[in-house]
Amino acid sequence: MYKSASNNNELDHLISLLSKIPGLGPRSARRAALQLIKKKDVLMRPLANALASVAENVHPCVTCGNLDIDNPCHICENGKRDQTIICVIEDVADLWALERAGSFRGLYHVLGGTLSALDGVGPDDLNIKSLMERAGDSNIKEIILATNATVDGQTTAYYITEQLKKFDILISRLAHGVPIGGELDYLDDGTLTTALNSRRPF
Amino acid sequence: MYKSASNNNELDHLISLLSKIPGLGPRSARRAALQLIKKKDVLMRPLANALASVAENVHPCVTCGNLDIDNPCHICENGKRDQTIICVIEDVADLWALERAGSFRGLYHVLGGTLSALDGVGPDDLNIKSLMERAGDSNIKEIILATNATVDGQTTAYYITEQLKKFDILISRLAHGVPIGGELDYLDDGTLTTALNSRRPF
Repeated sequence: MYKSASNNNELDHLISLLSKIPGLGPRSARRAALQLIKKKDVLMRPLANALASVAENVHPCVTCGNLDIDNPCHICENGKRDQTIICVIEDVADLWALERAGSFRGLYHVLGGTLSALDGVGPDDLNIKSLMERAGDSNIKEIILATNATVDGQTTAYYITEQLKKFDILISRLAHGVPIGGELDYLDDGTLTTALNSRRPF
Repeated sequence: MYKSASNNNELDHLISLLSKIPGLGPRSARRAALQLIKKKDVLMRPLANALASVAENVHPCVTCGNLDIDNPCHICENGKRDQTIICVIEDVADLWALERAGSFRGLYHVLGGTLSALDGVGPDDLNIKSLMERAGDSNIKEIILATNATVDGQTTAYYITEQLKKFDILISRLAHGVPIGGELDYLDDGTLTTALNSRRPF
């Protein structure tokens, strides 16, 4: 809990809000507030405007769940992208990661999380129903399940695979193995075992 | 440098501003932006308003340099505080730390940094002149130099001590030694040596 520092309600309120940003705690929120005040014109006011503007204008895409000003989003609306392949990811951050890599030119579908018995997240809490609707579209030829390589991510991928079996669609998943630049000595046993079992002819 | 992730200028702009907050890098700024959008009404809009409002209303106190809506600040204006003693600190964060401790009831003077040959910070870049003016006031009986126990902090304290010698004022500094709760085994040699040299009768 944030303890009042400045005896100044307005500043305290700002610090308490800043401390709720993931990555900032009460201490770094105080440091951040002071830095922001020092850089009022180049950082603080622009940030206030950017926050207000994004809150107003950025919304999840009705089709894929991506965040964008346009709705449907610029990826769904981009005619140059492959409209026959959908990559299913957990979160918009994963979509951004794939877009940074720049090697996927199809469409996306953001689940909005993973199934989790522990956290009480069931199929209805994720964008699975809308994925089924898109899969029913005769255009779609392949669905790549790119959930994280975690227990919850893989459970979710398995569940979706089961649901998709009724459609005549190729279902694939990302390859698991040694990351590029990775040294065997530093890899965990699970990754090494997977890499060995999935070995491919040179 | 932040690499565009979302292909969305407005979001990219927000992320690039967030990544300039101390404590957040490009990666955590992306995470923060997504969290903020998820919590639009409870976090994002209030934060935008708080930033704009603090940018507009909070200013450094003309007397001591503390940040406040009022000017002079609520500490300078508080008649119940001891008006004869000034505690000199480097930064507003240090003022907040002392106020949290709650054991000092005098006035403050914020230097705004330390002397640093390396960073090209000279006496004129700090609020030293205004401190001299306050010291010239016949009310002031003691000045506590509470700069950090770093090389720059101590150099600055030494410089100010020299400047204050012409006034008939008691000049003191914070005690150095073993922190409360500190274990000798984990302390650095400098602190242990200081604690030993400054030992006091039981």
